[in-house]
Amino acid sequence: MSALEKQIAFLLEIDKVKTIIRRTRLLDNTRYENDAEHSWHLAVMAVILAPYANDSGLNVLKVLKMVLIHDLVEIDAGDTYLYDDHLKAEKARKEALAAERIFGLLPSPQKEELHALWEEFEARQTSEALFAASLDRLEPLLQNYHTDGYAWKEHGIVSTQVYKANEHIQKGSQVLWAYAKDLIDRAVQEGKLKKGSSENI
Amino acid sequence: MSALEKQIAFLLEIDKVKTIIRRTRLLDNTRYENDAEHSWHLAVMAVILAPYANDSGLNVLKVLKMVLIHDLVEIDAGDTYLYDDHLKAEKARKEALAAERIFGLLPSPQKEELHALWEEFEARQTSEALFAASLDRLEPLLQNYHTDGYAWKEHGIVSTQVYKANEHIQKGSQVLWAYAKDLIDRAVQEGKLKKGSSENI
Repeated sequence: MSALEKQIAFLLEIDKVKTIIRRTRLLDNTRYENDAEHSWHLAVMAVILAPYANDSGLNVLKVLKMVLIHDLVEIDAGDTYLYDDHLKAEKARKEALAAERIFGLLPSPQKEELHALWEEFEARQTSEALFAASLDRLEPLLQNYHTDGYAWKEHGIVSTQVYKANEHIQKGSQVLWAYAKDLIDRAVQEGKLKKGSSENI
Repeated sequence: MSALEKQIAFLLEIDKVKTIIRRTRLLDNTRYENDAEHSWHLAVMAVILAPYANDSGLNVLKVLKMVLIHDLVEIDAGDTYLYDDHLKAEKARKEALAAERIFGLLPSPQKEELHALWEEFEARQTSEALFAASLDRLEPLLQNYHTDGYAWKEHGIVSTQVYKANEHIQKGSQVLWAYAKDLIDRAVQEGKLKKGSSENI
């Protein structure tokens, strides 16, 4: 296959991302969101919210590439719910294999570039990865808050779990974490999220 | 409202893009695609296919921003089918009003920046706009070909219409147009697309 044929094969394969269903709802609460819609929303968020990143010298293009491809591994590995702690080790193993296969469809050097970008996102060490990870948490928080806590209630999630799962937003953006904390507090006050400690579960 | 509150209001508003249904099918042919999924796919295509742009000095970040926001106006104006020629003037008027309202949710200078980017995309004069427009045609072409011409057959579209609607791909990328032309020819040979002239319709 030519380089272009390999690239087209990759672009056709990733259409499957549109069929991977997440645990969060559209804001009109009519249905669950899929990974392609989620990745698009994160990308627009990256463009709009980049001025709030802790690192003002952030490479926005790199953040965009990361959020656009961060869920491709779920084509093989599926979506793991944020609060399913016991599934996390298995998830990492499956996703590493998926990355190998899916980025492996591309010709070099794109294969290596995208695989490395995904690993950088997962490792959450660089400014770009930390900011991308902040957005990846902020979007579901906004969705849960604006659908009256639908997915939180459905899965019996309590406020301490939400704090714990989202506090790393501050590593990407202190400003967005202040906003997120306030949103969680308001969700509790307004009965959208049950106040609780991890001992409750 | 603070700048951040305006930005969040914009990011919540654009969730509606996930409910705007296009005339093209997912590759598994189970349902129609929506604008958010389409915009995500174009963004990944921009990352992967940028090396084939006629202008090798293309600003990829700008292309990404364009494709991510190019369909936001459809929140108010709806999706107009590529082959509905008589709707085009009305479409332009509705979309200009939509752009005013939707980008107007943002604080300055993002409001002006995104509005200008959308107008640049629509005008198709710059390298970035021409390449973004090429991708906007190539994706549905791939979808139609790989779903056995589903949407073409459904709407009675013939090959000369497909050529005419897609030939501007060459203004963004000669390489992608060569690929697209071959795909159209194969679609005709394989019975996925009816051979025909515009006189037939």
